[in-house]
Amino acid sequence: MTTASDPRRFDVIVIGAGPGGLTVAAGLAGLGRTVALVEQGRVGGDCTNTGCIPSKRLIHVARTGGHAGAGDAMAEVRATRDGLAAREREEFRDHPLIALMEGHAALVSRGLVRVRAGGVTALLSAPHVVIATGSAPLVLPIPGLPPERTLTSDDLFDVDQLPRGLAIVGGGPMGLEIGQALAALGTQVTIVEVADRPLAAAAPEASEVLLRAITARGVSVLTRTRAVSYDAASSTLRVAGPDGEHEIAGVDAVLMAAGRRPRTAELGLAQVGVATTPDGHVPVDSWGRTRVRGVWATGDVVPGSHQTNAAGALGRRIVQRLAFPWLPPVGRVRAVPQAVFTTPEVAWVGRVGQDLDAACHPSAITRVRVDLAATDRGLTDGLTEGFVMINAVRLTGRIVGATVVGPGASDLITVLALAIDRRASLFAMSRLTYPYPALSGAIGKAADEFARRTMGNLRREATGYARFRLARARGRR
Amino acid sequence: MTTASDPRRFDVIVIGAGPGGLTVAAGLAGLGRTVALVEQGRVGGDCTNTGCIPSKRLIHVARTGGHAGAGDAMAEVRATRDGLAAREREEFRDHPLIALMEGHAALVSRGLVRVRAGGVTALLSAPHVVIATGSAPLVLPIPGLPPERTLTSDDLFDVDQLPRGLAIVGGGPMGLEIGQALAALGTQVTIVEVADRPLAAAAPEASEVLLRAITARGVSVLTRTRAVSYDAASSTLRVAGPDGEHEIAGVDAVLMAAGRRPRTAELGLAQVGVATTPDGHVPVDSWGRTRVRGVWATGDVVPGSHQTNAAGALGRRIVQRLAFPWLPPVGRVRAVPQAVFTTPEVAWVGRVGQDLDAACHPSAITRVRVDLAATDRGLTDGLTEGFVMINAVRLTGRIVGATVVGPGASDLITVLALAIDRRASLFAMSRLTYPYPALSGAIGKAADEFARRTMGNLRREATGYARFRLARARGRR
Repeated sequence: MTTASDPRRFDVIVIGAGPGGLTVAAGLAGLGRTVALVEQGRVGGDCTNTGCIPSKRLIHVARTGGHAGAGDAMAEVRATRDGLAAREREEFRDHPLIALMEGHAALVSRGLVRVRAGGVTALLSAPHVVIATGSAPLVLPIPGLPPERTLTSDDLFDVDQLPRGLAIVGGGPMGLEIGQALAALGTQVTIVEVADRPLAAAAPEASEVLLRAITARGVSVLTRTRAVSYDAASSTLRVAGPDGEHEIAGVDAVLMAAGRRPRTAELGLAQVGVATTPDGHVPVDSWGRTRVRGVWATGDVVPGSHQTNAAGALGRRIVQRLAFPWLPPVGRVRAVPQAVFTTPEVAWVGRVGQDLDAACHPSAITRVRVDLAATDRGLTDGLTEGFVMINAVRLTGRIVGATVVGPGASDLITVLALAIDRRASLFAMSRLTYPYPALSGAIGKAADEFARRTMGNLRREATGYARFRLARARGRR
Repeated sequence: MTTASDPRRFDVIVIGAGPGGLTVAAGLAGLGRTVALVEQGRVGGDCTNTGCIPSKRLIHVARTGGHAGAGDAMAEVRATRDGLAAREREEFRDHPLIALMEGHAALVSRGLVRVRAGGVTALLSAPHVVIATGSAPLVLPIPGLPPERTLTSDDLFDVDQLPRGLAIVGGGPMGLEIGQALAALGTQVTIVEVADRPLAAAAPEASEVLLRAITARGVSVLTRTRAVSYDAASSTLRVAGPDGEHEIAGVDAVLMAAGRRPRTAELGLAQVGVATTPDGHVPVDSWGRTRVRGVWATGDVVPGSHQTNAAGALGRRIVQRLAFPWLPPVGRVRAVPQAVFTTPEVAWVGRVGQDLDAACHPSAITRVRVDLAATDRGLTDGLTEGFVMINAVRLTGRIVGATVVGPGASDLITVLALAIDRRASLFAMSRLTYPYPALSGAIGKAADEFARRTMGNLRREATGYARFRLARARGRR
């Protein structure tokens, strides 16, 4: 169709059809822009094909039970995933303003992109190019572990027979979600985590509840431990932990869940002057702009959280900036909530755990915690675990971060994300009316507790706050 | 202890120990005030003893199953209820600043309250008296229906043997919640509703989904129908509906769920000059103050929604006003969310249904609706029903009202209640980051839809908005 001397012209070229790329493509096409959308793998990206969608479907299938076996469960997961992928592919293929292309894209120069598929090459041009190529799972080398026994999220959902024994390297969200779901389906799961607790990015209190819950459900969690070597003949994984090395028998496969790496190596970024960080990320401003005019990025290639929601949020900002540059700039994204869909669910927003400790002086912060079991809904529903915990600036009640553990944590955290976004203090959250007896009432109860504690000791709180502000002002000099 | 000539003095007298009264008593006592708390029935009020708590426990027990029978379920409900009531009673009885008294209280004059228990009378005095006596279920007369076959929320949870066949008069929140739960426990339930749909206060779309769901679960719902008479010998209820009169056989008892009436008759309100509305409500301002200085009211005695959350919210405002009169006035309560704990849950906030139609010109409003089945979480969890529906002012996106139907609706509505409270437009809600794939993402999806529709037709939307503002301005002249 096109030759190298005659590039096809578009308003925007989007490289990568995952959540970030699809958000930008759909948003701009919906506003009348012509979009070239290039994907070398599957439309939907990791989220639809190897990430959130299949993992959440697996969790749901494992929770609700009623399956002949793990193989059946995986078949259900694949059916859901493939159904969504097909729907997304059709939706984008049929859009009159979107040209969906399969192939590998790379920047040739600013505004010029070469697409290779099989032996065919096409040239595309557009004033704007959006990099949304996502990331790939990191595979840590374990001596002796053969490739056919190494699983990542890329291939996990395509196995027909689940391993009877599985070691998971990494106790982050993915390792915990998959580990708990597979354990419910009958797999013997051992999680190997190098940090001193699972879910190290969360508040320690959340890790504690989750560790107890997941262990009670039959998952073995080894902390401060790393995989050392594997013996295929005996299906044994050797690990090194705080008490020295030991062996785990009956490990038929190892799932890598220890992080991801952005796919930015072969995109020609250097060619057009876009620098990447040492680990391959593309730095952008709050509008998704790189330092090079006309080159944008969103999703996992951007430093920060590797999350579908972040990809979509930044994607929407790119759409707004491209389509309505005259719109007044909106504030930066203040709060990106995180959710882990284990049982119980764990979610947090803002500064929690180490991040909080690093950023805020402890005497500047008031922490309030309400256990769900102590709420009226917790009572009627017989809840025994879970909590709402909010960190707020002393005296003023400005919310700095929050953690929720329990049923619907991913929805409760949205309330707190909105509170942070709208700068609603805990006093304001205390005045809000909550449905009764909804779990979200625990947020109100925590806010009441803050208000009571603060107003009941107003002088002490005011002095403490003033002292902290003073210390901060001195520290700045 | 005291004689009529020597009243016991307190900072505040609270009449009624339900959610409203307990909030005020606990709040003020926590701030060092002395409180007399007078209750003629059970501490905890209707919420703990005959309302939210036992009904939500019943719903949970019915949902999770695993019981020998309905009698067992009721025993479980009572155990939970009595446990909470005992805990609340002890908590308040043991508080050093709260004098908990059993008996009937009435105002003698401003600041003076007489308490009668058995043959004993005591006089209490305080500069402030808070009326929080709640409400009692309305019992509609049905000719032929004997008292022992008439149930209200006051006695329902104390029956040992659930009726095999039950008619419920009233298709509001309570009738629907109880009806669905008892049907799950094996009772044949018929709901008799005089309006043309159940849950008439909600949006018609919510009634529709709920009617389908509750009917599919075996509850019979008769709309535009009223109970005419009852024949005890044949256990037959005669009803009059749109097709004339007919009989329902096998009705062993009738549960009254057609509204409540404030308990304000014998409080001596007229004595001190506090007027009540014709149906017995006590009008108050946004701080819970009646027209008479030093007399306050909260809870079901106040006109408006009969809800635990409203009682607590106004109670907290009373506490703030009494304890910190110098605090700057906070804005009025903008959004009181409502939740019905059926399966699916139904919740709404702000103006919906008839209320919206009455208050807003249809051309001023943009309605966006996202079906949960069309969301990614809906897909992974196999949801087939439920939605998020938001009514917003055209062009500006100011949220006027919202309805959520589905799992966790009572938590999702809290997000929208906070949005209304903080005046976050749908544009702001579209920029918010939601956890993925959480159900709350449906709110973001609805907001995106609004933004897309508005920004994609900006001229039309601006013209439509201007025309509506103009019409409103003309209408005002």
